[in-house]
Amino acid sequence: MALINEDYLKLPDNYLFTEIARKINILKATRGNAKVIHLDAGDTSCILRGELYNTLKQSLEESVEWEGSREFNAEEHHKTLVTRILKNEFETRGVKLTPSEIFLSDSAKNAAEDFNDILSTDNIIGILDPSYPAYIYSNVMNGRAGERMNDGRWSNLVYIPCNQENGFKPQIPKEKLDVIYLNLPNNPMGITMDSSELKKWVKYAMDNQTLIIFDAAHVHYITEEGVPHSIYEIKGAKKVAVEIRTLSKTTGYTGTNFSYTIIPNEVSAYTKMGEQVSIQKLWQRRHTSKYNGMPYNSLIAAEAAYSPQGLKERQELVNYYMTNAKLIKETLTKHGYKVWGGTNSPYVWVKTPNGMSSWKFFEQMLYEYNIVCTPGVGFCPGGEGYVRFTGFAKHEQVKEAMNRINNKIKM
Amino acid sequence: MALINEDYLKLPDNYLFTEIARKINILKATRGNAKVIHLDAGDTSCILRGELYNTLKQSLEESVEWEGSREFNAEEHHKTLVTRILKNEFETRGVKLTPSEIFLSDSAKNAAEDFNDILSTDNIIGILDPSYPAYIYSNVMNGRAGERMNDGRWSNLVYIPCNQENGFKPQIPKEKLDVIYLNLPNNPMGITMDSSELKKWVKYAMDNQTLIIFDAAHVHYITEEGVPHSIYEIKGAKKVAVEIRTLSKTTGYTGTNFSYTIIPNEVSAYTKMGEQVSIQKLWQRRHTSKYNGMPYNSLIAAEAAYSPQGLKERQELVNYYMTNAKLIKETLTKHGYKVWGGTNSPYVWVKTPNGMSSWKFFEQMLYEYNIVCTPGVGFCPGGEGYVRFTGFAKHEQVKEAMNRINNKIKM
Repeated sequence: MALINEDYLKLPDNYLFTEIARKINILKATRGNAKVIHLDAGDTSCILRGELYNTLKQSLEESVEWEGSREFNAEEHHKTLVTRILKNEFETRGVKLTPSEIFLSDSAKNAAEDFNDILSTDNIIGILDPSYPAYIYSNVMNGRAGERMNDGRWSNLVYIPCNQENGFKPQIPKEKLDVIYLNLPNNPMGITMDSSELKKWVKYAMDNQTLIIFDAAHVHYITEEGVPHSIYEIKGAKKVAVEIRTLSKTTGYTGTNFSYTIIPNEVSAYTKMGEQVSIQKLWQRRHTSKYNGMPYNSLIAAEAAYSPQGLKERQELVNYYMTNAKLIKETLTKHGYKVWGGTNSPYVWVKTPNGMSSWKFFEQMLYEYNIVCTPGVGFCPGGEGYVRFTGFAKHEQVKEAMNRINNKIKM
Repeated sequence: MALINEDYLKLPDNYLFTEIARKINILKATRGNAKVIHLDAGDTSCILRGELYNTLKQSLEESVEWEGSREFNAEEHHKTLVTRILKNEFETRGVKLTPSEIFLSDSAKNAAEDFNDILSTDNIIGILDPSYPAYIYSNVMNGRAGERMNDGRWSNLVYIPCNQENGFKPQIPKEKLDVIYLNLPNNPMGITMDSSELKKWVKYAMDNQTLIIFDAAHVHYITEEGVPHSIYEIKGAKKVAVEIRTLSKTTGYTGTNFSYTIIPNEVSAYTKMGEQVSIQKLWQRRHTSKYNGMPYNSLIAAEAAYSPQGLKERQELVNYYMTNAKLIKETLTKHGYKVWGGTNSPYVWVKTPNGMSSWKFFEQMLYEYNIVCTPGVGFCPGGEGYVRFTGFAKHEQVKEAMNRINNKIKM
């Protein structure tokens, strides 16, 4: 008799974005002409910028023809891409890495989720609260989270609170944690850490043989000085951290995913008997078996993203989205909302007024203004009482949305 | 202290294709001018056919421009693709399925590997011997395979022998198995089953509440009448089987992976308490969390693969590869080798002469003729004494390789 993995039954029925979509569908069913503006996830509609687009088109044209078909050399492009990543992302920050420490993959989200496959189910996992839900769900699926409790938290996970009292900055845990997810600049709260703060986390990890999964998906949105872009800017981090990066947030190329994970030669974890094992070697084993390589089109586009023109255009796109975030932040602040983020991140984290619940405020925004934000509670129980707005949208949409709020234009 | 998943340490160090690559590198290091012909895996160099290529290029040109960027509508293309799949792959074979039963994914291999994440580690797994190694390794990683024994088999897997005595046709197991991988047309042996044979497997699965993972990656290579293309042509199969399909084998588009899994509404597995659970619901949960959607370029190309012109060109590519397989089969038969497959599959399964080992014969072919085949033992211990040749190569290469064998041209 075929048995299921019963950990999957523990997962709550509706994933955050599915539930949001459902509520929007209800609105549209009752008011067919509703002009809904998405300031929730956004940027999923496969937008290519100039250089990426041109290179992709050109590469198709230049492909070698044989007997009616066309052939490419993926290997060379792979090499070029990795060299460009090392040069532009790490050397400029004083971080030395080698090509064998970079693993290309489809999506940063999946890399973060899949990475815990190579870790024991016995690890005690620390996550920020609120946090990006994928970290939690992938641990539930792998039988590491325990049971879902009444407050929505999981019995075997350790929640590191980020709240108004600590300015949404997580404090070093008192417990000895085995694995910690650090997501900086943070999603959903938009916060960062400076070098001295991040040093404490690396020291904690070294002292406790903790592995840090450092998700730097939004690194290109950092505008302030003194904020490390890579965890490897901190001495010792190569021994205790893997780092996840994506290009999709700066190329608008979400639909043709490309991301990469840095797994330094030195980073280790342990067997139950205390034997030290190279994480790179384990991941290499999973990767060669479970990953088929980057699709050719994604590879070409990723390479173009690191050309001088590609880099320039990506910066323009970052500025574009940050202008949106700034406008959202200013508008909401003006109307008396308490607001965080939006400085080193395209996310604006907003406290709901009068202790209103996240979903209640979400519904109010949706039904009154036809604006979609993301209920903070969807990011963990610690996000209750907050919502997240994102700058990942078109200027004109953000302007219209803010105009509705400014002028109390009820839809 | 971060602990690893120790099941990963059980995996043998060298994956089959890595080991083959290593041996080829040694050859090239000693004889730099060696003209190596690949008749092993092949077809990994991202070849686009006419209609796919044209559509992809056209779709880039027709994308909507806004503020210097380009925007696509992935949702509509997704719908069209699924409709075309249902019409061309299943309705033509009398199989009725609905769009919600089709799950798009990156690669058929990964779909087969990832699928067992939603199954309990307690299941007893049956695999054909020899078999496609990914089925085994993914079960090792998930802690379901037990220990690797001296003969290379895994203690908790049940091996269903396919050998010369039974004409490489697996016989219905005597044990009650929980999950069985059936891969038809088979890789590496190239065999198929007719309806009456496949009926017995479906009956076995219904009698024992077994789940069949039916990997039909090579379905388009079937040339004989009476061979089911989909397991759902057999009555009752929707209750006990999921089916995996890929487009890469017929489009030459391996580098931009697209595949799909059919998970019928009726197919079930069970909790330990015997409660029936919808597999579709479980997979849906994994899929929405761990899959980000098909890259736009892959989606567009996949859609074009089901246009009338795309279908015509895919059939031409199938014929092209089958002509290769036929030539390999005829040549080797002429030289006294015992050969299977090559009729409903691009794979030709060859018995090594005089009881020679798989790797020995592989090396002989490599060092004498500079031809790369795949050692059968790499597909499971049951493949020892055989090698696999594939038609996935260019005509001229296959011709030259066969010419070397015909005329005993030692390199």
